[in-house]
Amino acid sequence: MTGPVEPYPGPFERRFDAVRHRLGNTGVEALLLSVGPDLPWLTGYEAMPLERLTMMVLPADGPATLVVPALEAPRVVERPNLFSLRPWSETEDPIRIVAGLLGGAQRCAMGDTTWARFVVDLLAAGPGLALSRSVSVMGPLRAVKDTHEIDALSAAGSAADRVARQLQAGDVPLIGRTEAEVSAEIGRRLLAEGHQRVNFAIVAAGENAASPHHEPGARVIRADEVVLCDFGGTMHDRWGVGYCSDITRCVWTGDDVPGDVAAVYEVLHQAHGASCAAVAAGVSCESVDSAGREVIAAAGYGQYFVHRTGHGIGVEAHEDPYMVAGNAELVEVGHAFSIEPGIYLPGRFGFRLEDCGSVVSDGWQPFTDADHALTSVIA
Amino acid sequence: MTGPVEPYPGPFERRFDAVRHRLGNTGVEALLLSVGPDLPWLTGYEAMPLERLTMMVLPADGPATLVVPALEAPRVVERPNLFSLRPWSETEDPIRIVAGLLGGAQRCAMGDTTWARFVVDLLAAGPGLALSRSVSVMGPLRAVKDTHEIDALSAAGSAADRVARQLQAGDVPLIGRTEAEVSAEIGRRLLAEGHQRVNFAIVAAGENAASPHHEPGARVIRADEVVLCDFGGTMHDRWGVGYCSDITRCVWTGDDVPGDVAAVYEVLHQAHGASCAAVAAGVSCESVDSAGREVIAAAGYGQYFVHRTGHGIGVEAHEDPYMVAGNAELVEVGHAFSIEPGIYLPGRFGFRLEDCGSVVSDGWQPFTDADHALTSVIA
Repeated sequence: MTGPVEPYPGPFERRFDAVRHRLGNTGVEALLLSVGPDLPWLTGYEAMPLERLTMMVLPADGPATLVVPALEAPRVVERPNLFSLRPWSETEDPIRIVAGLLGGAQRCAMGDTTWARFVVDLLAAGPGLALSRSVSVMGPLRAVKDTHEIDALSAAGSAADRVARQLQAGDVPLIGRTEAEVSAEIGRRLLAEGHQRVNFAIVAAGENAASPHHEPGARVIRADEVVLCDFGGTMHDRWGVGYCSDITRCVWTGDDVPGDVAAVYEVLHQAHGASCAAVAAGVSCESVDSAGREVIAAAGYGQYFVHRTGHGIGVEAHEDPYMVAGNAELVEVGHAFSIEPGIYLPGRFGFRLEDCGSVVSDGWQPFTDADHALTSVIA
Repeated sequence: MTGPVEPYPGPFERRFDAVRHRLGNTGVEALLLSVGPDLPWLTGYEAMPLERLTMMVLPADGPATLVVPALEAPRVVERPNLFSLRPWSETEDPIRIVAGLLGGAQRCAMGDTTWARFVVDLLAAGPGLALSRSVSVMGPLRAVKDTHEIDALSAAGSAADRVARQLQAGDVPLIGRTEAEVSAEIGRRLLAEGHQRVNFAIVAAGENAASPHHEPGARVIRADEVVLCDFGGTMHDRWGVGYCSDITRCVWTGDDVPGDVAAVYEVLHQAHGASCAAVAAGVSCESVDSAGREVIAAAGYGQYFVHRTGHGIGVEAHEDPYMVAGNAELVEVGHAFSIEPGIYLPGRFGFRLEDCGSVVSDGWQPFTDADHALTSVIA
């Protein structure tokens, strides 16, 4: 369900060049990409998550070939200057085709989300294969977004931001509806605002908000409680490559936020700001995490912030770089990631405040900007 | 977004027993399950497709442990008689935890759709690991459905069947709308009829119907042409395990089907019937394929039936057994699969006719039964 796709010019030739350059630098003899985000980032084509294997075989020193089920071949926008197609029919063995195309290459980097069944079969077909993860090749390339990717992420972020503002304005009825109903409505709004796909729409009311990945269910939202909403989708760029959005806002279903609730939220709000302010080219990812975490710990809530501060975002909803303790990797201009501290008080309520954004020369440039306060919503 | 889930009694104890029995018979020392359908089939819990590892470690001779991100642990319905939980926090390494739980086991069967990144990391953490595919353990168990699973597949099939009947009755406007619009409406109807998830809704008009896996797009449906609709979703059973539906019907957007079009459809209709009639306990899977294929070949369209006749269906939309040339596996009572021959005439039009059903003592028992004719729809 794509719109018109511009075959040329696109970013793919530049990306192939960059990948080949990194293959040379890393000593990887061939890259193998299947389902998941690496393949559309490189070619514009997304493999179907099926038992029929789709695999791009990209040897460091030879031509690239997209091995694809004959059934799917009509969906591929061919780019003959970059790769050739090798459709396979129902009675062929695609593993043998891939093994043949490897031509003896042994140090192979495998797409991170390739299905294990194909990895196991390839290991059996090509004894001596030494596998590494594609992220070792693709990670640094995908992590630093070009201008076009920043535009695509901004567009997706703006669409999610509009839904967040609708939520804060009371356009999404809450009181008396189930979490699941509100989740479905947020999903519809993400699509209406331009996403092609809803990736998730967490809606967690009251005590459920204390579970960071709560699954929206039959719980009915009541007056005078916290509702945590964390949602995002995928929006295609002009070449049909999808970029993700991700935002979290909490609202209060009543006129007056109780003082103790407001006090906890204020700690979170400060922590969010501290991590955003810590972003700069050359600082470590873990320092972005610790900047906000220290605010929360100083207020006595350290044990209730149970997850990392952020994840990279791009063609994947979660990708490198991760803002987490232990990650000494340095933040670069062009990195895009989330900043999303949380405080979760079991049995009571929880809060998370999240924006995604990118690193620019003078710091943090968020893709979303809906009100950061704990908004009162009587709806 | 599940409804109420009954924790006990469920089918899981029986399934654990069966899996342990097969581990003993196959010489596999441990089973490792992550994202994908094996884990919910065995435990009722579906892992999130995230970079944070969820993995069930089930040693042949020891207690089972579900390694799960601490964030997700609240979503797990615990079954302490079957497995224990090992939540891991953001700064722990789940690969090390899994490797430790293996306790030296080397012959491991890996869940088929586990992400390659975890396979690669486990191979690095446990040198000497000899991996096989989980299907070698789970495949025969999952392929033979118990009564409860047949009920769940029938319920999902009936829901999809109702949408097919609505399509044939003209309830879904076609003429003047895009394929993408009709696809979205079919998806909404699948949900309205009781599915929790839409897996796909192929809508292919006119010449697009000649591409079996056409992606519904901006093509506007006109009067007097073929529209191929292939759709299905997932419906939860009472324990929250999802079972799939899948059906294909073609309609003609006009009063009178031209004679040449009707003649091609009649060949397909006969082929579908021949494959259904060929189903019996003890025949080979490939003979179910060839029964219909011979009808199509005899009519001169053999080269235009470009895919296998069918795929198993259960917790996965496509699973063992496959009705395809070269598969000498025998059909058993309790197998559930699709029968879906097709004829695709490039540049002109295409047809597919599909039901899923199960094998009973006296043959084929379909889950869907909407009119098998090429229905005329003026809508």
